[in-house]
Amino acid sequence: MSGQAPSEAEVIGYLKTLSNWGRWGTDDELGTMNLITPAKRVAAARLVRDGVAVTCARPIATDITADTTFQMMRFMVDSGEGRDTASAERLLQRRGASEFIGMVFHGYTITHVDTPAHFFWEGKIYNGRSCTLITSREGAQVEAVELLHDGVVSRGVLLDVARARGVRWMERGEGVMPGDLEAAERASGVRVEPGDVLLVRTGNYARRAVDGPANPMQAGSPGPHAALAPWLRERGVAMWGSDTHNDVTPTPYPSMGHPFHIVALVGLGLWLIDNMNLEDVAQACVERKRWEFLLAVAPLRLRNVTGSPVNPIALF
Amino acid sequence: MSGQAPSEAEVIGYLKTLSNWGRWGTDDELGTMNLITPAKRVAAARLVRDGVAVTCARPIATDITADTTFQMMRFMVDSGEGRDTASAERLLQRRGASEFIGMVFHGYTITHVDTPAHFFWEGKIYNGRSCTLITSREGAQVEAVELLHDGVVSRGVLLDVARARGVRWMERGEGVMPGDLEAAERASGVRVEPGDVLLVRTGNYARRAVDGPANPMQAGSPGPHAALAPWLRERGVAMWGSDTHNDVTPTPYPSMGHPFHIVALVGLGLWLIDNMNLEDVAQACVERKRWEFLLAVAPLRLRNVTGSPVNPIALF
Amino acid sequence: MSGQAPSEAEVIGYLKTLSNWGRWGTDDELGTMNLITPAKRVAAARLVRDGVAVTCARPIATDITADTTFQMMRFMVDSGEGRDTASAERLLQRRGASEFIGMVFHGYTITHVDTPAHFFWEGKIYNGRSCTLITSREGAQVEAVELLHDGVVSRGVLLDVARARGVRWMERGEGVMPGDLEAAERASGVRVEPGDVLLVRTGNYARRAVDGPANPMQAGSPGPHAALAPWLRERGVAMWGSDTHNDVTPTPYPSMGHPFHIVALVGLGLWLIDNMNLEDVAQACVERKRWEFLLAVAPLRLRNVTGSPVNPIALF
Amino acid sequence: MSGQAPSEAEVIGYLKTLSNWGRWGTDDELGTMNLITPAKRVAAARLVRDGVAVTCARPIATDITADTTFQMMRFMVDSGEGRDTASAERLLQRRGASEFIGMVFHGYTITHVDTPAHFFWEGKIYNGRSCTLITSREGAQVEAVELLHDGVVSRGVLLDVARARGVRWMERGEGVMPGDLEAAERASGVRVEPGDVLLVRTGNYARRAVDGPANPMQAGSPGPHAALAPWLRERGVAMWGSDTHNDVTPTPYPSMGHPFHIVALVGLGLWLIDNMNLEDVAQACVERKRWEFLLAVAPLRLRNVTGSPVNPIALF
Repeated sequence: MSGQAPSEAEVIGYLKTLSNWGRWGTDDELGTMNLITPAKRVAAARLVRDGVAVTCARPIATDITADTTFQMMRFMVDSGEGRDTASAERLLQRRGASEFIGMVFHGYTITHVDTPAHFFWEGKIYNGRSCTLITSREGAQVEAVELLHDGVVSRGVLLDVARARGVRWMERGEGVMPGDLEAAERASGVRVEPGDVLLVRTGNYARRAVDGPANPMQAGSPGPHAALAPWLRERGVAMWGSDTHNDVTPTPYPSMGHPFHIVALVGLGLWLIDNMNLEDVAQACVERKRWEFLLAVAPLRLRNVTGSPVNPIALF
Repeated sequence: MSGQAPSEAEVIGYLKTLSNWGRWGTDDELGTMNLITPAKRVAAARLVRDGVAVTCARPIATDITADTTFQMMRFMVDSGEGRDTASAERLLQRRGASEFIGMVFHGYTITHVDTPAHFFWEGKIYNGRSCTLITSREGAQVEAVELLHDGVVSRGVLLDVARARGVRWMERGEGVMPGDLEAAERASGVRVEPGDVLLVRTGNYARRAVDGPANPMQAGSPGPHAALAPWLRERGVAMWGSDTHNDVTPTPYPSMGHPFHIVALVGLGLWLIDNMNLEDVAQACVERKRWEFLLAVAPLRLRNVTGSPVNPIALF
Repeated sequence: MSGQAPSEAEVIGYLKTLSNWGRWGTDDELGTMNLITPAKRVAAARLVRDGVAVTCARPIATDITADTTFQMMRFMVDSGEGRDTASAERLLQRRGASEFIGMVFHGYTITHVDTPAHFFWEGKIYNGRSCTLITSREGAQVEAVELLHDGVVSRGVLLDVARARGVRWMERGEGVMPGDLEAAERASGVRVEPGDVLLVRTGNYARRAVDGPANPMQAGSPGPHAALAPWLRERGVAMWGSDTHNDVTPTPYPSMGHPFHIVALVGLGLWLIDNMNLEDVAQACVERKRWEFLLAVAPLRLRNVTGSPVNPIALF
Repeated sequence: MSGQAPSEAEVIGYLKTLSNWGRWGTDDELGTMNLITPAKRVAAARLVRDGVAVTCARPIATDITADTTFQMMRFMVDSGEGRDTASAERLLQRRGASEFIGMVFHGYTITHVDTPAHFFWEGKIYNGRSCTLITSREGAQVEAVELLHDGVVSRGVLLDVARARGVRWMERGEGVMPGDLEAAERASGVRVEPGDVLLVRTGNYARRAVDGPANPMQAGSPGPHAALAPWLRERGVAMWGSDTHNDVTPTPYPSMGHPFHIVALVGLGLWLIDNMNLEDVAQACVERKRWEFLLAVAPLRLRNVTGSPVNPIALF
């Protein structure tokens, strides 16, 4: 690992020392989203030069793979079968195709946003609210994804840690450390600034394409180390995304479980994007030697939900 | 109605006279999406001045309302209940909230994209393919929403027909006609050009907030009239969205059922956004006296699906 | 009402005075199911004379009705459309029809079993276990429907209270009282005995067919009154079913909410069948002047679930 | 294999020579269910001596196993978590647990009934109807499981072919042949007669418990051979169930795919039960040296559905 890892006590201490609770008022639910200003969005739009748009999401399919926890469902409500030979009356009623889609987007396969309500620590979510506000029947009564109804539009910065390390992908169990981010900054000539959406590439999704899917809870996974928290706080990152499930696994801090999620979501109110596909955008950056772009993330306006599947779009 | 409606034979004729089949090659699946060029995206980004982002989507909730065909589902896989008092061991295992979401996004309540595969005419979908390629088991094997994996980013133009007509909302059964679009163009000083995403406001969603939900199949609905097709073809509209289910109801052409869908999707390969919320964006336009903006639509990367729920974001 | 209703304090007292906690051991999860013996089943089989089987369940459909809380879902995984014209190769792969079914069976429309884990009182379920054993992620870790893997087969007794009262149906808000059961016993010449499955007809489902569906939380409903508890305990009823959601509504005891559910499930460990269709079986009883029969209830072997949709079959 | 297998042409011929089309009228949808008479049910009830009930179903769980095609879903609508500490107001509203269950019961894991509408041959289902009556939107408009609303109650006969062969289980790829059934009859002293529900044990489910799940399409499976059809027709079997998915795999007749399903469902109108658990009932038979019993199968009253998950109960 590049950089020394803090002790567990230090990481738990981050929840106090780095806390954003109260920073934007006692009623705040937006957390680090407060760092994205209109001026930031205007500046992001100024980055558009080529007019090339690139997805940062993975496809969503119904396959059961090694990293599937809950199978995605797609059932046709109506199809085109037989509509070439059906009667005119029938065609009038059933002229279109339609489908049911169902998914548990949290997990290890679907690109999705985590709201601060997704994780708890000592009974609390971001800004000191009780975790009991997220109920089975009503869902997330606070800090739900509907807060992002106007989307997240800001400067996106890609820090390609695998590239900066000179590897195809980081090994399972390796954590992204502050030194990795700074090395990647140097390699790409970009500096992360307040309000940025920071996308960090470990090469994990590239490996999936080569080696096949693996379950991170069994095989391990690279991912952000909780040691990043002070750096993210200092730089004012508004949203973090990576091509992992966003916690190095096995966990360095067994009594915390998912320390990066906890410190980011609960302590900082820092929204996450899990399981991204950063292959296309990394290629686009290399081609242009430019690691910054306009990024648009448009979560569905799901009521009372702790996240959303998304397709973040980078615009160069 | 403003403007004379064509006969049914004329509308059926549009499927030949206005056809885009073959225009972008016999293999094309993108249809009018071909009209959005990189230069168009760059120009759209130049429209960003204030850095204000505005949703064009409706919230997605589990309520059963008069316009519900299939109830949206949200079930918590895990909640925060009891996590304030649970044991440390339990908390390690179950520290987060998660949910299942399920929906039939086609219908009358959810803001969603229609791909050309959503509708058939005489056994065919856009570009002459057989509708039997959309099967129950495999889904949409062609012209599926995954084609838009890089999103739709272009100039968005709002034509506020209700405003141009001087009404709060168009009445149920009233169709948007070419004259309406031209009047709205004049009123707003904008002209629809090739590659634009055209958003047309009838006030239908504003009425829903006031009068409550209504089922368009029973109560009727304003919506685009098939008479618009020549105008849309001529102007080179890349995508059409409105605050209706996108067919004036009751249908003016009983033997076609949904003539606007048929002519747009099948004949033109023109992608649609149904059931938008254009209230916020209309207000933002009025405040700025500007009816053009960068629009980003980011469909989920659903495999083999005839559309996607979306949250289109207008950036001023 | 026939019979005087106990005070709320008395009903709450039932949870102690009538409690079956510990009666069948501290580990017991079966509750009143313990009262059904092999001898009881043999005796029930001896009641079969005509060989006529009759359903006691309602159809399960996808319609949204006034009493729908969660819409039932049925989506075809594969259909027969186009299989009359498909190629031989296609037919080899897709020769059958299949479907996804999904439902929340608890509620007001689907005939289903309630296990004792379905309701809590003061943090406890039947036999003194903590309600926290029923978790979002794992489901019902105790007192789940899988306990009934061998089905419920016993004597079924129909007490037709509406008939005994001489009405087509009991009015909404009217509770079934002990006197009702005894009057129905006298009218039908049958006496409820230990191990019986007691089915009580209020006519509520007949009314639904005539007047249309109504939401019991809004319109009220007839149903069992908590005053029945001592009688049920004394007689040794093994399972209770009725053509209601099994609590007279509006509730006579506002601070309890669903007092019959609470006393039956939590206090007695008495399993329930909600929302039955007792019209066919009532007719069969009248025709034979016989109100007892073999009853077979076969819950699905759902793991960790607090009930099951069922189709109880009466065999005469 | 015991007995010589017919040629494919012969098996296809069965669809004519053994056909039950028209046997019970041109409108018939019940097929072999017509063979179960009231007298048959009375006789079945006379078999009850011990009053012991035994499940013939497998548990239904959410695990993804090698034989999973579609994952079963169980999500709690409400749980007991936190109900030990919640406020009285909260408890009044949320005093119970509830869940959503969803499944595709057809496949290789869930014990379920197949209706005749489940399979097609040359565009037809049982009794000559068009397979196009099973549509995506409406479901099975004929020959749906609702026909069995009064359940299936008859004599159940277990023919334990694995036991008669003297093996723990039949090998994958081995078909059950007429000689197997006759050997099992001789070994158990029972003769299959008109109206019986015939349950045939291959030991396949016992093997699953020992060797773990396997996907029959990949690993193969024992199962009924289409050669059984004349025997089943002659004996008047009303319903067939086995501990397999009910077609020996790999298929002996590649151009038919699932020949047993086709001949049974389409030709004979013979209803099937797939994926049974016959371990408990086999043990109960051995203990009593009696291979006949009352069998009760109670499909859910699902509208327009080609089958139902079931828990068949044998009563000794």
